[in-house]
Amino acid sequence: MNDPHVPSLKTRPASLADVAAMAGVSTGTVSRTLSRPEMISEETRERVMRAVEQLGYVANGAARALAMRRSHTIGAVVLKFGSSNFSQVVEGLESEVARKGYTLLLSAPVPDGKTEFAALAAMLARGVDAIALLGFEGLEETRGILARYPVPYAHLWANPASGGHCIGLDEARNGQIALAHAADLGHTRIGLIWGQVEGPLRYRSRQRLQGVMAAAQERGVTIVHESCVHTEHGFEQGLQAAEKVLASGTGITAILCASDYLAVGAMRGLQQNGIRVPDDISVISFNDNDFSAYVNPPLTTVHLPIRQVGMKAGHYLLSRLGENMGPDGYALDVSLKARGSSAPATASPTPAAIAGAPRTKRG
Amino acid sequence: MNDPHVPSLKTRPASLADVAAMAGVSTGTVSRTLSRPEMISEETRERVMRAVEQLGYVANGAARALAMRRSHTIGAVVLKFGSSNFSQVVEGLESEVARKGYTLLLSAPVPDGKTEFAALAAMLARGVDAIALLGFEGLEETRGILARYPVPYAHLWANPASGGHCIGLDEARNGQIALAHAADLGHTRIGLIWGQVEGPLRYRSRQRLQGVMAAAQERGVTIVHESCVHTEHGFEQGLQAAEKVLASGTGITAILCASDYLAVGAMRGLQQNGIRVPDDISVISFNDNDFSAYVNPPLTTVHLPIRQVGMKAGHYLLSRLGENMGPDGYALDVSLKARGSSAPATASPTPAAIAGAPRTKRG
Repeated sequence: MNDPHVPSLKTRPASLADVAAMAGVSTGTVSRTLSRPEMISEETRERVMRAVEQLGYVANGAARALAMRRSHTIGAVVLKFGSSNFSQVVEGLESEVARKGYTLLLSAPVPDGKTEFAALAAMLARGVDAIALLGFEGLEETRGILARYPVPYAHLWANPASGGHCIGLDEARNGQIALAHAADLGHTRIGLIWGQVEGPLRYRSRQRLQGVMAAAQERGVTIVHESCVHTEHGFEQGLQAAEKVLASGTGITAILCASDYLAVGAMRGLQQNGIRVPDDISVISFNDNDFSAYVNPPLTTVHLPIRQVGMKAGHYLLSRLGENMGPDGYALDVSLKARGSSAPATASPTPAAIAGAPRTKRG
Repeated sequence: MNDPHVPSLKTRPASLADVAAMAGVSTGTVSRTLSRPEMISEETRERVMRAVEQLGYVANGAARALAMRRSHTIGAVVLKFGSSNFSQVVEGLESEVARKGYTLLLSAPVPDGKTEFAALAAMLARGVDAIALLGFEGLEETRGILARYPVPYAHLWANPASGGHCIGLDEARNGQIALAHAADLGHTRIGLIWGQVEGPLRYRSRQRLQGVMAAAQERGVTIVHESCVHTEHGFEQGLQAAEKVLASGTGITAILCASDYLAVGAMRGLQQNGIRVPDDISVISFNDNDFSAYVNPPLTTVHLPIRQVGMKAGHYLLSRLGENMGPDGYALDVSLKARGSSAPATASPTPAAIAGAPRTKRG
């Protein structure tokens, strides 16, 4: 690693004086606590050892030589796209790395094709020990920047088939789970309110949609093209998309939404047009956000282990840094939560659901 | 500042080589861009200047001497209590400090009376230039730790009357706004679903409640003690509290909830006991979270500028660090959003609302 472009690490490891300052004792007390703990009161010993752990202080020898090269910071660069689960992923990552005394350095750029790469390069230039990325996978620019900095990295919400550094879910399977639930309830004509699927950063959205499509074909379910809307993730976007789906008037009996943000907005859009959920139209979604079990009706959704994706990435990165992490217990289990927003397809949908004209346009 | 306990700053300022690495050019090109920009192509110049800005690179002289002492990191230590707006506050803070090339160092300890202070001390020991705290105000331990590190600090969601370093809202006034709305609608008997109000970290909750109580007295509204529940903030907690309020059977016609998390859970609890919102009971809340306009019925709530609190704190801290921030434009405006969950008090509440026995207990 003689690349002159790799900056030297910018933080120094914790010293004896740092530990003393944090514990509020003298450096002599810290030394004695480490060498002859039986001489120190339990309360002081506990305070010193807590400081030692929090600061990642390493006393001597080879371990110290290794720690010398560490900043004990993990970078996270996460793109902001509308409503997203990013804060939960970041919380999971932070809590995992904090277990070993690492601190998270956070950058959350709004992507415009330039800013996000500058933010990524700036984060690496800070001398982080490892970096977690959300929204950067598969891009030439990303590879170019990462190649200049020899630190472990992980892509969050990326295709797990691409390797252990890609922490994410089998999105095709997630799509199948949602479609299977609709098919099991007897729905044969379905609309979609979905995210964008074009472009390099839309892997998740695209894979999940492919899973839906494949399962629909297998189960004899028609995804009605005129009743499919692609938009950004957000409550208001879901509401507006639902009005478009209604206006399409194709007599669908269920809508699959790509996120709970879209689904809750869509239910609102349906309800304010006099469409009953689930009596007239079932709504099925993905995420299982914190609000989803409490909306009216409670949302049927594919539970995704959002926070665990962050924790698993933290586990992976610290393991790569040689930390003793134990086995990775984050299984990333996915399961359907069947709640009140989905019900068996009615033999004859109500006129409102068939006609599909939004009430706002009638009046 | 000769306190030996103050650790030396742990990060070095960006060098010419760092700028060159990020921009993907030679150090000579960086020098020429800075000294003779007319010699450099527009595309290269733009790339170099972006790197200069992102890295906070300072070329020479007194400014560089100042920058030499900077890590260009802002620490944030935010306590995790159940459901909270903390991620929005952190997002606001991050976006503000990123404008000047600073990166956020994040720690989100679960408070137990020890862990959070260790986290605070560890963050300061990292050598951050300034620090933002959420949940630490007014504590002896906090003052002791902050006294050891001479950096600017700000308390988020703290009492603004305590000084400019306390960024928050007039919570008594917020409480008055919500109560006034209920009184204007003719509600005279009201229940509460509220957070805890005891202990040093409950300032907000306590002040807001005092505002409600004072306004109730002024407007002749009775806060019915048996229909008041104090709990932690969360959807499930709101649901369970609503069942308790119903079981109290005191014939209230409105419930004030201390957060939208509680309110959405409470509406669910009311609805699944056959109580109509707002026909039987109005629900009024605080926050205006992203989901609140889209639930069923849409939630009447006092809009709090959550993200702006983080931005204003970032503005304050960078100003304290001598950054040229311009005037602080974050006014922290509060306003009532009247939506479908509140309506005029009915002359005679329905039997269900009067009897108040939860359906689950009936059969």
